[in-house]
Parts: sequence; structure tokens; C-alpha cells
Amino acid sequence: MTIKEIVTEVKAKYPEINNVYFVGCGASQSDLYTAKYFLVRNAKRLRTDLITANEFNFDPPSDLGEKSIVITCSLGGTTPETVAASKMAREKGAPVICLTNAPESPLAQNADYPIIHGFHESYSAKMQKLTKCLQLAAEILEQYEGYEDYEDMMKGVEKIYGVIDAAIPYAKPLAEKFARENKDERVIYVMGSGPSQQVAYTFSSFILMEMQWVDSASFSAGEFFHGPFELVEKGKPFMLLMNDGNTRPMDVRALEFLNRFDAKVTVVDAKDYGLGNEIPASVKDYFNPILLDGVLRVYGEAIAEARKHPLTQRRYMWKLNY
Amino acid sequence: MTIKEIVTEVKAKYPEINNVYFVGCGASQSDLYTAKYFLVRNAKRLRTDLITANEFNFDPPSDLGEKSIVITCSLGGTTPETVAASKMAREKGAPVICLTNAPESPLAQNADYPIIHGFHESYSAKMQKLTKCLQLAAEILEQYEGYEDYEDMMKGVEKIYGVIDAAIPYAKPLAEKFARENKDERVIYVMGSGPSQQVAYTFSSFILMEMQWVDSASFSAGEFFHGPFELVEKGKPFMLLMNDGNTRPMDVRALEFLNRFDAKVTVVDAKDYGLGNEIPASVKDYFNPILLDGVLRVYGEAIAEARKHPLTQRRYMWKLNY
Repeated sequence: MTIKEIVTEVKAKYPEINNVYFVGCGASQSDLYTAKYFLVRNAKRLRTDLITANEFNFDPPSDLGEKSIVITCSLGGTTPETVAASKMAREKGAPVICLTNAPESPLAQNADYPIIHGFHESYSAKMQKLTKCLQLAAEILEQYEGYEDYEDMMKGVEKIYGVIDAAIPYAKPLAEKFARENKDERVIYVMGSGPSQQVAYTFSSFILMEMQWVDSASFSAGEFFHGPFELVEKGKPFMLLMNDGNTRPMDVRALEFLNRFDAKVTVVDAKDYGLGNEIPASVKDYFNPILLDGVLRVYGEAIAEARKHPLTQRRYMWKLNY
Repeated sequence: MTIKEIVTEVKAKYPEINNVYFVGCGASQSDLYTAKYFLVRNAKRLRTDLITANEFNFDPPSDLGEKSIVITCSLGGTTPETVAASKMAREKGAPVICLTNAPESPLAQNADYPIIHGFHESYSAKMQKLTKCLQLAAEILEQYEGYEDYEDMMKGVEKIYGVIDAAIPYAKPLAEKFARENKDERVIYVMGSGPSQQVAYTFSSFILMEMQWVDSASFSAGEFFHGPFELVEKGKPFMLLMNDGNTRPMDVRALEFLNRFDAKVTVVDAKDYGLGNEIPASVKDYFNPILLDGVLRVYGEAIAEARKHPLTQRRYMWKLNY
């Protein structure tokens, strides 16, 4: 079934949806943020939140049930907390739509509507998860409330993969420079704003902490000036994600401060990759995190190579039960 | 005006509210999280989100206006981004309720309904900001939708200050132990779950990063197992906030893992301070962050003293324009 067909069927069966809950863990939680951000900004009636799976399991919203669409996500479809969340949501009567790369997985088997996304084929395929989730949110909004920029959003969904793949060759030398300059750093901070804040969280928590065992933190470029900026001094490593969109002034302000005090700044800017030339202006904001997250895969690979620490190396995950 | 009188008047003037937006910066953003968490869990119709002020200013929700209550917060009432958010929200026709310690401040002057909270009088006074915001959210829910545990919530609001002040003498030696053991650490991680996740963010971002210039990060105890736990090794400093509530199993799981691999763990546990003996079970969850944040002030003072770095010392804030 297409995403449009899925939402059409859900609407026929559940005409009175009040809530759209996005539920996942780790990077597959973070990848749902753009869609949640989109609904907060554009819905007039639909309630929404993004909740890490075990928090959803242990403390679910009181009205979770037939008036809630639950969207779960797990790349391999085996994340136990997310599978449990899908089961629990269905038991309470909510239609569950999952995003996964694994059609036969426990997650797919415990969802009413699995959406299978690519991943390994290319850099843009890795971004199908985020893109299909955003498309799903836009489809839900269009069918339940109406969404005036729906056609533009669908154009953006078509165009974004080409923008990402075109960006990769340009990103590679910049990523290698980042890796050379930061491979021996003990702590690296990552910042983003608006819909891209969770892309910073993904790079910090999963590329740096999880896959490189490098101390890191991420925060909103807006929050930076209310605390973390006190850490800035000459040579302090910061990665700044810059949007081509509404919250760009927040990114620019952070960049000016970091440069003013000679921090070691790595900028990854959606504007450098021509996002605005391809994606309609009305929906451009929501494609920033998709482009930036795609480009950051190259940065992750580059620092892993420079540190001689494969992205697949783990201390605990896949090795023991916890 | 009392909080009840404020919401009664808002309801009379704006009977058709769809949204409750919480807006602030830094610790005054974080302090609004419990109320937002409460509305996500308990409202059936009211939409809600917590947005850092400049993100709200540069990318406001499309339906911000007469159907939105905007709740802003700033201790001193001068935070420029939050004052700008209050002005913008009022220009769009939304009633603005602010929480501040400063009745004559720009924030108070740019809000329709200022709620003045204490701060300097005692440890519990420092928690009036969080408590009054939670009370405000419960009052809004009661008046617009009805809230079955409203009476219990008001009992909790009465009791929590006593619980905090009673906890402080017990917390002091534990805080001094934390300070002794961690004063020379270069990176300290802080974790919490459910309504207390942003208390971890507050301690990490504002006590450690901002006020102590110590590298730090915070995350949900649920997310811990999907990335950051790969950083755990013998002696790695982690502070774990434990709730006496629904998400406690997430905290317990994190504690077991940290102990299993000999991390340097500091536990701050709401159960140790008898939260459940004083606060009605139906609303106990939402008072965990208030108790924990109150107790953590003692931890902040202790590590500042041990590090001979006053909590008021800054590199940039209050010193220059940025």
C-alpha cells in the first residue's frame, strides 16, 4: 500500500483521530522529530508528541486508544521497546503504522500498516525513513484537516533524494577536513535549530557517543546562549548545523559567537547544497534535517576512518543482554 | 489574581482555546517541561508543546492566535527572546501568562497575566516556578476540559514545598560526597526519565556547563540504552535521577547497567525523600521533577564550593552583548 492508501484506509476506519504519537528509540526516535515538528507547526486540531518507546510504554498518554494514530520506527524492526509500544498501542485500539527496513521483522508483524523504507542502497536511501515519516505526517494532516502546502510537500518528497545524492561528493572533502581536525578531540558539541535540532542529537548521541565512544552533547542553537555557550573558548570543538529556513538567524547568531571566540567550528550548511533551488519554499524548512542528516553520514564515516574505529564497533550492543 | 482567577478570566474571554504553548529559554524553558508533560499525558483536546523562545519567535506554530494560551517564563523577567515571544504572541491575539520573580520586569509588563513566584527565600521557594506552572496547566485543563485528579493536584501543590525543605538536610551530606568524588572530573553525564528528563537537562546544561564550565550532556534514561551507554566504563561519572513514579523501571534499568560496569554513579532518588508519603498517588509523577530539581540545588552548591568556582561566575553572560 502507498502512504496515501494507508492513511485513506485509516481514515475510513478511524474517522475521529485526535492524536498522532511518534514512538521510537535512539536514531529511530530522532528520525521522527521532523514529522512531529511539522505537525506542531501546521496542524490546527491534531495533537502530537514524540516519545521514546519505554516512556510511552510505562507512562502512556491517558487518551491513547481509538482516537490515536501511533507511528513507530525501527530500522531493523527488532528494537524490543518499540515492538512492545506497537503491541500496547494496538491493544488499546490505536491504529499503528510502522517504518522499518525489515518487512518480516517483529515490528512489521506488530503494526497494522508497515511502511518499508530503503537504507543500504545509497546515502539518499538512508534518508527514506525521515522522508517517508514526513510524507506520512503531511498525508495525515491533509486527509484529517486539509494542508494547503500538500502538493509542495509531495514535490519536496520527490526532489530531496536527488539533492542528497548530489551533495555527497561535495561533502566528502569537508567531512575529511572535519575528521582530520577532530579525530583526537575528547569532547565535541553539536548544535542545530528548528526541525534540525534532533539531527544534532543523532550525530552527537549515535555517531559520536555510541559509534565512536567520544564524549559529546547536543542542544538547540537557541538554548546555546542560555548556558552551554559558557564552555566556548579558543579551540573548543563545535559542529554547527545551519538550516536554509526560518530558524537560520539562530544558527547565524551561534556561528558569529563561536567565531568571535575562536572555537574550532565545523559548519554543515543546507544552503551550501542548494536545498532552496530544488524544494518549494513553502515546505523547505522540513527538508533541512533530511539533507543535513544525509550529509552527516559522510562526516560519520570520515571520523570513523580517521579514528580507526569502525562505526559498527560496540562495547555492549549486540554483545550482551541488558 | 490567583492562578484560578487568571484562568477563569482567560476562559471567559477566550472560550475556544486549542493550544497551550510553553515558551522560555535555558533553565526557565526547562522548568516548563513538567507542565507540558502533564498536558501531553492528561489532555484529550488541548494541543501543547514546549518551545525555546527564539524558535517560537522565528518559526511560530501556524495557528498561534486567539485560540492559543502562551505561557512564558523568565526568573528575572528580562530574557530578550522570551520578552519578544510574549510581545509577538500578544500581537497575534493570544492571551499571555508569564511566570517571573520580577513583577516590574519587561516580561511582566508584556504579559496579560503575570504570575509572580518566589525564589531566593528558600530551596522550596526556588521550586515555585515549576510548581506554579504545573498548577496553571492543571487549572487550564480543569476549566477547559475537566481533570479528574484536580483536587489531588492542588493537594500536591500544597505539600511539595514541605517535602523539599524536609529533604535538604538529608541531601547535604550526599551532595558533598558527590562534590568530593566529582570535583576533578572533566565530563559528567546526567540522566532522568519521564517528567524528570528536563531536570537532568537543567543540571547538565546550567549547573555543570554554564555555571561550572564542566563538559556534560543529559539524556533520557530510555534513550541511554540506544547509544550513550556505549560510553560506560569503569569510573565514568554519571548522575542518575530516579523517579518515584511510572517511569521508575527505566531508571532502575539504567542503574543496574551503570553498576554492572562500575561507572561512578551518583543517584538522586525521589523515593529517598518520601515523596509518596505526602503527595497523592494519582499525581505523584508530576512532583518528582520538582523535588529532584530542588534537591539538586544543593548538589550544585556543593560542587561549586568543592571546585572553588562560584555558581555566579561567567565568561560571557552579563559581561558583553551577543
